[in-house]
Parts: sequence; C-alpha cells; structure tokens
Amino acid sequence: VNQMKDVAINLTEFVGTAPIGDTIGMVIANVDRDLFAKLHVEGDYRAIGILSARTGGGPQIMAADEAVKGTNTTVISVQLPRDTKGGAGHGSLILIGGQDVSDVRRAIEIALENVPTRFGDVYNNQAGHLELQYTARASQACHMAFGAPEGQAYGLIAGAPAGIGVVMADTALKAANVEAIDFASPGFGTSYSNEGILHITGDSGAVRQAVISAREVGEQLLGTLGDTPMNDFPSYI
Amino acid sequence: VNQMKDVAINLTEFVGTAPIGDTIGMVIANVDRDLFAKLHVEGDYRAIGILSARTGGGPQIMAADEAVKGTNTTVISVQLPRDTKGGAGHGSLILIGGQDVSDVRRAIEIALENVPTRFGDVYNNQAGHLELQYTARASQACHMAFGAPEGQAYGLIAGAPAGIGVVMADTALKAANVEAIDFASPGFGTSYSNEGILHITGDSGAVRQAVISAREVGEQLLGTLGDTPMNDFPSYI
Amino acid sequence: VNQMKDVAINLTEFVGTAPIGDTIGMVIANVDRDLFAKLHVEGDYRAIGILSARTGGGPQIMAADEAVKGTNTTVISVQLPRDTKGGAGHGSLILIGGQDVSDVRRAIEIALENVPTRFGDVYNNQAGHLELQYTARASQACHMAFGAPEGQAYGLIAGAPAGIGVVMADTALKAANVEAIDFASPGFGTSYSNEGILHITGDSGAVRQAVISAREVGEQLLGTLGDTPMNDFPSYI
Repeated sequence: VNQMKDVAINLTEFVGTAPIGDTIGMVIANVDRDLFAKLHVEGDYRAIGILSARTGGGPQIMAADEAVKGTNTTVISVQLPRDTKGGAGHGSLILIGGQDVSDVRRAIEIALENVPTRFGDVYNNQAGHLELQYTARASQACHMAFGAPEGQAYGLIAGAPAGIGVVMADTALKAANVEAIDFASPGFGTSYSNEGILHITGDSGAVRQAVISAREVGEQLLGTLGDTPMNDFPSYI
Repeated sequence: VNQMKDVAINLTEFVGTAPIGDTIGMVIANVDRDLFAKLHVEGDYRAIGILSARTGGGPQIMAADEAVKGTNTTVISVQLPRDTKGGAGHGSLILIGGQDVSDVRRAIEIALENVPTRFGDVYNNQAGHLELQYTARASQACHMAFGAPEGQAYGLIAGAPAGIGVVMADTALKAANVEAIDFASPGFGTSYSNEGILHITGDSGAVRQAVISAREVGEQLLGTLGDTPMNDFPSYI
Repeated sequence: VNQMKDVAINLTEFVGTAPIGDTIGMVIANVDRDLFAKLHVEGDYRAIGILSARTGGGPQIMAADEAVKGTNTTVISVQLPRDTKGGAGHGSLILIGGQDVSDVRRAIEIALENVPTRFGDVYNNQAGHLELQYTARASQACHMAFGAPEGQAYGLIAGAPAGIGVVMADTALKAANVEAIDFASPGFGTSYSNEGILHITGDSGAVRQAVISAREVGEQLLGTLGDTPMNDFPSYI
C-alpha cells in the first residue's frame, strides 16, 4: 500500500491518485485530434479521462463502472498491460470519454475514490493472489471489459497462479446457479498474465454466493504455497 | 527455492506442491461442463489434472511428459504466462485429461515429483537464466508444447536475455548433427519472454552433446552480466 | 546501474556489455543456416550481430541506429520482450546483419558505446518511468522499429504507467508543430508493456521542443506516485 501523497502540482490534467496500485487519474479537456485518432477508440469526444495503474485491472474497472453510472461519460478503452510490478496479474489503462471536462473529471474522481474498496477482496501472498469482485448491477465498464450484461449482477473470480483460478471457477459454478460468461487464462483473454479468471452473471444472490464459495477454496489453495493470503483493504463482499 | 510445506488442507482438489517455482498440483474429479467448454481444449474428459507455476515452463512440461508416459492420461493444454516473478521467462499452466480421477491424480503426483529434477539444468544469476532440457524419448507433452517427435530424443536450449539464446542455439547446431525443430524468441513463439529457445531432435547422443555444448557457452555469456549462474538442484544432463 | 565488468572470456562471439540494462553484445561470424532460416528475418547474411538487454527498448534501438549509420550493416530484427525485471517496460533483442564479421562487430561495439547516452533521458522512480529520445536524423533502425522517416528528425515520448504517456503525448503535440507517426499503448503496438509511447517526426527544432515539453509534464505526473524521477546517466536532450 502506498500512501496518498499530498501533492501540489500545477497541472490542470492531474486529478489525483489512489492509495494502492500506483493508480493515477488525469483528464485532458480538449484532446489533440491527431492523438485521439491514434487511441483506438470509437466515438468522438473532446474531453477524456484517464485512469492508469501499475497493479490491478479488475479493481480499476469496477471503480470505473461506478464512475460512469453517476456521470454523463462512457468508458471508451480498457487496456490491460501485463504488469503488477513482478506479480502475476495486470495493470490497467482506462479511458473515459465525455463532451465536458467537468463530467470526465468527476468520473475520474469517483473512480479514484472507489479503487480502495475494490481492492478489498484482492488477497496476496508471496506466491500469488486472489481477486473477487461483485456488483448487483453491472454498468457499461463491466460490459465493455468483461462482457457482463448491463443492469444485471456480475461476479469476477480470479486466482494466480492460474491453476488456482481453474479450481475456484469450478467451485463457483457448482456452488450456485450462475451463468459462466467467459473463462480467461494465460493463453486466452489475458495479456499473458498468470491468472485463471471466471466471469459470471445471474441472480444477484447466486452470483454473490458463487464468489464467496470460490474465495474460500482459493484462500486454502494459495495458502499452500506461502503465508495466508491477505488483503490491504477491508473485504466488501 | 521454497521448501515443500507440510500442509493439511481439507480440499479433495489439492494434490501437492513442488519445492520450486511456486508449483502447485490439483485435480477436479468431475469438471463442470460449462467450465470445460471454456477451457479451449479438445477431447472430452470428466477428470482434469492441473499443474500450475509462477516460474518455469520447460521444467513443468518435461515433468508432465514423464507423467503421461506412465498413466492413462493426456496433456490437453499447455499455456505459458509471461511470469517468473520479475525474471525473464515463463510460468506455466498445464491441464491433463483422463476419464478416471485416480489416473489424473497419479499423473499430477508424478509431475510434481519430477519438477525438481527438471530444474537441475536451470541456471540463474542477477541478469538472467539458462535452461537446458534433454530426454532420450519425448512423449506427448513435449510433442504438444514443442513439436518434438514422439519416441525420439529431444533437447531444449534456452538463454535469457534472449541474445544469449541465439548464440547458444548456433553453438548447439554446430556441435552435433541434430535437427532444429524451431527457434523461439521474444517476438515469435514465446509470450513476450526475454528468451531465445532452440528445440532440437535427432540421435540421442547427438542431442545430448548439442545441449552440453550450448550450456558451456551460455554459462560464459550470462556470467559476463553477473555472478556465475547457479542451479538450485543437481544437474541431470 | 550495473558496472562494466572486466571479463576475460575466451569466446569469439562475445563483444562486450553496456553498464546499464543488462545489455550484452555478441557476434556470430558465420551463422548456422538452419538457425538463420528460423530467425524470422529478411535478406541473406553470413554474419550477425546481437544486442540483447533485460531493460530498455528505446535506448538500444537508438544506439543501434547510430551503429548502422557508420558501418556497412543493417538492422534485420527488432523484438521487444515484456521485461525490465519487474518494471513497466520492454527489454530488447536487436539483430544486425552484414557480410563481414568485422563490420557487424564494429556495429555492436558502437551500439554498446551509445547505450549509456541513450539512457540519459530515462527517468525512474518506484512507480514507473519516463523515456525521451531525440535524433536530428533518424536512420534505418528507427525506421524499422518506429516507422521514422529516414534522414528526418525523430522523437520518442514514453510514460509509465501508460496514462502518463497519454498526457505527455497530448502535451507534445500541442507544444510544437510536429507530426504524430504512431501512439503505442498496452493493447496496441507494445508487448503488453505499461507504457504510452508517442513517435513523432518533423522539423528538428520542433521535435526537440515537443520532447522537452512532454518531459516536464511527465516528471510532474510520475512524481505524484513516488519520488522525483531520476536518470542514471546525464540528460542528452
């Protein structure tokens, strides 16, 4: 956990940082047209918001999902570098588009505020990590990044090294009546990260139960390779 | 080297760990059908075995090759995350299929037992690593992962940073009358790892001689960037 | 920074090392034909030079650009592993072809000599890095790797985590009348590195001004996530 720095910098682009994952939020009020054309996004926006992190894909995407719910903005790009500073997972680059810079600034602020909560069910030890995410109502970021149906419950279940994620996924699908959207692994649907990641949807109670069941199994399995996996922020699920 | 932990966990899926590479072995007796359909494997299996590691692709694949020789099982997926916990190479996710859970459990046990031996010719220093593998008789895992002809001798020659692997490969092919199956490098045939990897086949004596010649050159070259490269287990070649 | 070692090794292939990035230079006088056919390069060369590093793509490519200017050689492959030993960027594997081993040896020597200079505008802190490169006259390596027009000014502007590179790119394009060649990011044009990278060309003064403007913004942004970013060699831009 890196502490929030009390930084006074004189850049209108800077919005703030989150206290975990080397996460930084920025805005560009009127993005250069040549640059925008090379960002591989659809649509046409004057203002863009940027959420960028060394560690964490899921937490930042879930945080962006909250951000676009409450603002007149849209997630226009989700890119997942193979990062985590030597860890097994992803970092993230999330771009948010809007017509008004105040909208995208507010979206980035909301996202930064939500990042710590969304690290609440990320558990680490020397050998790897587990990540669990849950929302009763997925929005546009979860749809774009994970294929989650908008407005429905969504759950993410990840384990690293990847094989732990396979067993967690099997546990989740047997624990409750949920639908598997997709399963990502080092060679399919990740940026060669060492994770097994199940995406589920369904009834909100069932999705939550599936996530919780998988977490218990993941903690035991990852614990065989090191210390008891620990989270840096309180569990929210 | 992390020591084998004496773990007593109450999960039927857990088989064991190997004392290197954060390697864990697991089985699922009757895999969820929705999950199986999303694992990107061919064939139809009720039971799957899982060998998963943060560090090491070659050693675990060679260990799985021994495992499928002696059991009624088949390697159905080999995926290589870009991992090694900040190192230059791969981790691994290997799935083994069988009709009977006792078969796949035995296969995973054999693989775990063979992992340390297969790290015997992995040499590390601050700047990178070398990996050498050799078998007089390749089986189905080496065929699937490396294109090795089944039943014939096979050798793997890798150096990191990748350029060292290029010189090792040239040395190997000039040292003995062997056939180059393929050469992998950061942009071709790896998951963007920083390795140059030659796969060879041919007469068993020639393959072994080529591997040994390349090892000597690799040790000198990698040594120019740091300490003398060291292995964690005894050399087996 | 790792110091240049005074190594006496008895290998004709070894040329030398650079004191940063775990960079090693080698040559093969008469490369094995089977290996050459598997290196994924065009053209036909008897002698190849090899520049290989754990940390750094841009610096080594710029150094190779100087090397091919002064020798009868050609860069025939640029591959960028996802490396930097747990950092956010790339390592490199650069192959240089020539008909005469003395030419490629000289090219590798020039490249190694130029590597430290080209790390002069690489700035690091705990959270990431910035990289700036500039040349008044791009040569064949910059053309092959970055699409830079040969003979014209070229600039590289990179920030990590990637979002910092987006803001730096916007700043650069607004600071001077330059042309954006391309913008690379985790999902496009990188090996899943956590970088945003702008490539620019144009009038040499404008390119240099754009690079300098982006550097100032990048230093402030990256500084919000950690200490003031520092370079290991003197700035050259």
